[in-house]
Amino acid sequence: MNSYSVRFLPHDREITVQEGESLIRTALEAGVHVNASCGGEGVCGKCRVKIEGGEVEGGISEKLSGEDLEQGYRLACTATVASDLTVRIPVESTVDHSVLNKQYTPRKTARIRQMNFEELKEQGLFVPPAEKVYLELPVPTATDNLSDVTRLVSFLKLQNDEHGLQLTLPVIQKIPKVLRQEGFKVTATLARPVNEGGKTRIINIEPGDTTGRNHAVAMDIGTTTVYGQLIDLITGEVVAEHGNFNGQISYGEDVISRIVYAEKGDGLARLQEVVIGTINGILEKILKKSGIGANEISSITLAGNTTMTQILLGIDPSHIRRAPYVPASTLYPPIRAADLGMDFPEHVTALFYPQVSSYVGGDIVAGIMGAGVYRTEKLTLYMDIGTNAEIVVGNREWLACAACSAGPAFEGGGIKFGMRAAKGAIEDFSIDPSTLEPMVITIGSVRPKGICGSGLITMAAVFFETGIIDNRGKFNRDLDTPRIRETDGVWEYVVSWADETQIERDLTLTETDIDNLIRAKGAMYSGVMTLLAEVGLTIGDLDQIILAGGFGSYVDLDKAMTIGLLPETDTDKVIFVGNGSLMGAKMSSLTNRIRKDVTEVTKMMTNFELSETPSYMDNYIAALFLPHTDLGLFPELSARLASRKSS
Amino acid sequence: MNSYSVRFLPHDREITVQEGESLIRTALEAGVHVNASCGGEGVCGKCRVKIEGGEVEGGISEKLSGEDLEQGYRLACTATVASDLTVRIPVESTVDHSVLNKQYTPRKTARIRQMNFEELKEQGLFVPPAEKVYLELPVPTATDNLSDVTRLVSFLKLQNDEHGLQLTLPVIQKIPKVLRQEGFKVTATLARPVNEGGKTRIINIEPGDTTGRNHAVAMDIGTTTVYGQLIDLITGEVVAEHGNFNGQISYGEDVISRIVYAEKGDGLARLQEVVIGTINGILEKILKKSGIGANEISSITLAGNTTMTQILLGIDPSHIRRAPYVPASTLYPPIRAADLGMDFPEHVTALFYPQVSSYVGGDIVAGIMGAGVYRTEKLTLYMDIGTNAEIVVGNREWLACAACSAGPAFEGGGIKFGMRAAKGAIEDFSIDPSTLEPMVITIGSVRPKGICGSGLITMAAVFFETGIIDNRGKFNRDLDTPRIRETDGVWEYVVSWADETQIERDLTLTETDIDNLIRAKGAMYSGVMTLLAEVGLTIGDLDQIILAGGFGSYVDLDKAMTIGLLPETDTDKVIFVGNGSLMGAKMSSLTNRIRKDVTEVTKMMTNFELSETPSYMDNYIAALFLPHTDLGLFPELSARLASRKSS
Repeated sequence: MNSYSVRFLPHDREITVQEGESLIRTALEAGVHVNASCGGEGVCGKCRVKIEGGEVEGGISEKLSGEDLEQGYRLACTATVASDLTVRIPVESTVDHSVLNKQYTPRKTARIRQMNFEELKEQGLFVPPAEKVYLELPVPTATDNLSDVTRLVSFLKLQNDEHGLQLTLPVIQKIPKVLRQEGFKVTATLARPVNEGGKTRIINIEPGDTTGRNHAVAMDIGTTTVYGQLIDLITGEVVAEHGNFNGQISYGEDVISRIVYAEKGDGLARLQEVVIGTINGILEKILKKSGIGANEISSITLAGNTTMTQILLGIDPSHIRRAPYVPASTLYPPIRAADLGMDFPEHVTALFYPQVSSYVGGDIVAGIMGAGVYRTEKLTLYMDIGTNAEIVVGNREWLACAACSAGPAFEGGGIKFGMRAAKGAIEDFSIDPSTLEPMVITIGSVRPKGICGSGLITMAAVFFETGIIDNRGKFNRDLDTPRIRETDGVWEYVVSWADETQIERDLTLTETDIDNLIRAKGAMYSGVMTLLAEVGLTIGDLDQIILAGGFGSYVDLDKAMTIGLLPETDTDKVIFVGNGSLMGAKMSSLTNRIRKDVTEVTKMMTNFELSETPSYMDNYIAALFLPHTDLGLFPELSARLASRKSS
Repeated sequence: MNSYSVRFLPHDREITVQEGESLIRTALEAGVHVNASCGGEGVCGKCRVKIEGGEVEGGISEKLSGEDLEQGYRLACTATVASDLTVRIPVESTVDHSVLNKQYTPRKTARIRQMNFEELKEQGLFVPPAEKVYLELPVPTATDNLSDVTRLVSFLKLQNDEHGLQLTLPVIQKIPKVLRQEGFKVTATLARPVNEGGKTRIINIEPGDTTGRNHAVAMDIGTTTVYGQLIDLITGEVVAEHGNFNGQISYGEDVISRIVYAEKGDGLARLQEVVIGTINGILEKILKKSGIGANEISSITLAGNTTMTQILLGIDPSHIRRAPYVPASTLYPPIRAADLGMDFPEHVTALFYPQVSSYVGGDIVAGIMGAGVYRTEKLTLYMDIGTNAEIVVGNREWLACAACSAGPAFEGGGIKFGMRAAKGAIEDFSIDPSTLEPMVITIGSVRPKGICGSGLITMAAVFFETGIIDNRGKFNRDLDTPRIRETDGVWEYVVSWADETQIERDLTLTETDIDNLIRAKGAMYSGVMTLLAEVGLTIGDLDQIILAGGFGSYVDLDKAMTIGLLPETDTDKVIFVGNGSLMGAKMSSLTNRIRKDVTEVTKMMTNFELSETPSYMDNYIAALFLPHTDLGLFPELSARLASRKSS
């Protein structure tokens, strides 16, 4: 795919984008405001831009007259880049030039780092926990009539130097038939022990040579979503992946409501059944996509938070939500997947990532393993932002962790028009500081239905930087625009008028919404500050910040720092890893070394209970401002605000 | 109970018996023949004896006239000893004195040795595989909110020096509730590892202190019968026991017919289900008898032959009956009893005695362990006589074993009126050499229904010693008695006339029956001789002979030596242990040390395949005579026969 240079006038700002990028997103990326309130569906017709040079695809609409079209006007929202371009933003679609230049800087994106499989191989770490070995056993005779199992085990001992092998009953049951299917030529699957002194287990036996086909499944069991990957253990590649909502969602959106449900009658059994249903659905999909049989899978590694893990294992989670917040267990033995109801043959073992505490779960441990935090010298802050936010700080020498409940605002909960990051959710936003008209970009470029977490953060940041709200999140009552109004005693900003939405109501952001956001980001930020203080560090000491989680992948770093969700830091230090939990589960599927390390790492992770740390509440109260009571913690933002005021 | 002295006239033989012993059994024991062919039910009226001194109970019958009774005549079969007695056998009920004195010597009984629990304790071997530990855990607080499992495991580590503990999912599932039931005061059941380097497992957790109640079940899974014992692991005592026929009997009497059935469709699953049904029935009985709950049981140890074990575990047994006779496995992992369908809570582990080969199974290994053969210096021959006879020779230094198929004659199979040792089976027998009239004693002292294995051996021995049959088992056609006759071309002896039986037919022993017996005993004897020869020993080298098995407990040693079933030896060297398999299972329940040794012992047992040993067939052919072609092997019998001829 080609890259093209797009130059915006009158700003005289240039940006390079991929062919096919939408013009309105290109403008946003370049820090150029274009009025737009319909999310990018071409309904409002406000995002008229003039193509002065080059070619775009689309952008034609009945909102544009023939004359407009002839002059080169197009709608920025439906036009895509097809060559190098020069684009002029007409007066009505843009803002005062001088202000704009100060306000908008090109958007900062963090590097996205995924696991490097080649690196794993080079380091000799590619040792899958389950290994296949092809064996040509001597055929029994009258003078050599050892039992089938002894024949197999002795041969593995002599030929492959395997000692202390263990077998399960289902494997023993298969052995007599399988050995004789292809004349005592068989493939044995050996599961390597995780712990020192553990035994290698023979978990499967197949006729003939099947060593070329060995797979594993990695799965992230999220409160909201479940993702699975099918991994080829010969090549190390992901051959299929699939995600779906956790079927438990209809029993409550967050872990607490799930726990409450689990406490009722057969609630626990029901929730377990439902998530197993979700898992089986994903398994079916990835097997179908890849054309691989369930019998070719050796193991499934699962990572989830403490509540999700306990429920999946049928372990009463009720004490997780009750002081002193005691999980039932932090380590789990390998379990036959079929025993849990997973649609797997009997030989498949399910391995669960261990937990640290009730609120620092296997998903975080997996992220720490997958992102390599436990192996790096760099002092790292690892954050998984969500309703339940988890924070880890440390490196290969030591690790400290904490969890804080941010509330559901980041996932659209408690927000009047809040919604999850799905089609129709406003995910990006800017405003014309003079007209106070918005530029609204939605997921899927359709008319807006609501506001997702990243949209919420961006809006709050934009409102704050443009002075539309103050540092307590209150609207400036003196601004002259019909978009800012009081409804039923609550002040709000109309993001999209009813006829521009899919919901046929004015879509607004209220002061209550902003208040909820401030409390969420305050909890998160004070968690970070408290944990850092407990280990004697400051933000400046950190070498890198790793953001994990679906939400973490969407968030605009600048905006997150503007509202004080993230500490202000060099964005080059920030790395997005996406689904850290899934990444860890995948890593464990590829290398036994990680599985060996994981228990040690879990033990190394010192858990701080924020509710038991007195400074947490002080930090929290100080963080209930935009960005914070102590502006000294946000020097760049302070400078920008100062420059804006003086202009 | 009192003992009384009974003196028989005209023999002038005295014997001491317990009060209440039947007079006819007392006579038999003393070597005194009394005519009797109705088995002891008082029907034939032939066993008239005269009480010349002392008192008997019973013995009164309409077969006796008032005058008879007045003179002191009683029926020996229904009379029991009630004081010191002098009993005269009338002429019509006895035999020629001179012959009798030579023929009958007091019956030799072997010592019965059972496991000595006190000895186990003294040797420090009383260490049950599952141990209960009472723990008062610290209650979690905000500053001590370890997970429940970590709390338990850490406490066991610190307080009880337990390391590397493993837990299963069902235990983890129970922990949160159980810990909180009595304020973190709990009893943990620890299962000790069998192998070096194995881990101790926490298999159960109960609220409060239940250390006083810890039980185990030991079970012998025989082809014909299943026996179970409930053992108190605190006192080491058997608190209840029960036996029943193996429900698989209706699918075939011997292991081969079971295997054949298992090969059909879902035959294996059916047989497994049926034996589990038998086991569950026995469990129910012993729990009911003892008033102990299934939750108070920690483990079940099972011993059975290779076929019974494989079928019980759902492992295809078909290769057991096909050359080169390869069992699927000889060692089995511990298995959750509930997974096998046993009516046990999830925490109960089923432990299976390992096998040596297809025909030397866990029952024999258990016998070797239970009878202490593997710990003795004495050179021992251990035999389990039955359809499938197993022979072990050796001591604590070495062990050799072999199996031979004797056929079903010992269990009444292939015998015209053969039956198992049950009520109505003729189990003892003597004959009047002059009149050729029999003395028939049945199990339960009822009219005869058939002949069981021990009765068969005794009859053959008596016939042979009295010259009624020759050394090829053929009847002397010249004897003048209606009892010896030819029917449909086969010669036979009428043991009881139709009206004296329960079957309303003449109950006979045929030459074909004797032929089958000779082949069975020949197989057994040649097995012993071949195995001894293979290890370079002779009968004379043996320090002791241990006979195991239900059949072994009934057999009359003298008679067994007379027909050449057992090698002729000093009967003081012979020990009956009864159900060796059950004894071994019990031992393993009481001492982990035995469980540790058992794998080593199994490895130490060198298996000889008799079918692959050329001398076996030669030995067999030589043994197809009464007692053997080489009378030099039976010097005492030869002397008796010579003395009889010369008299």
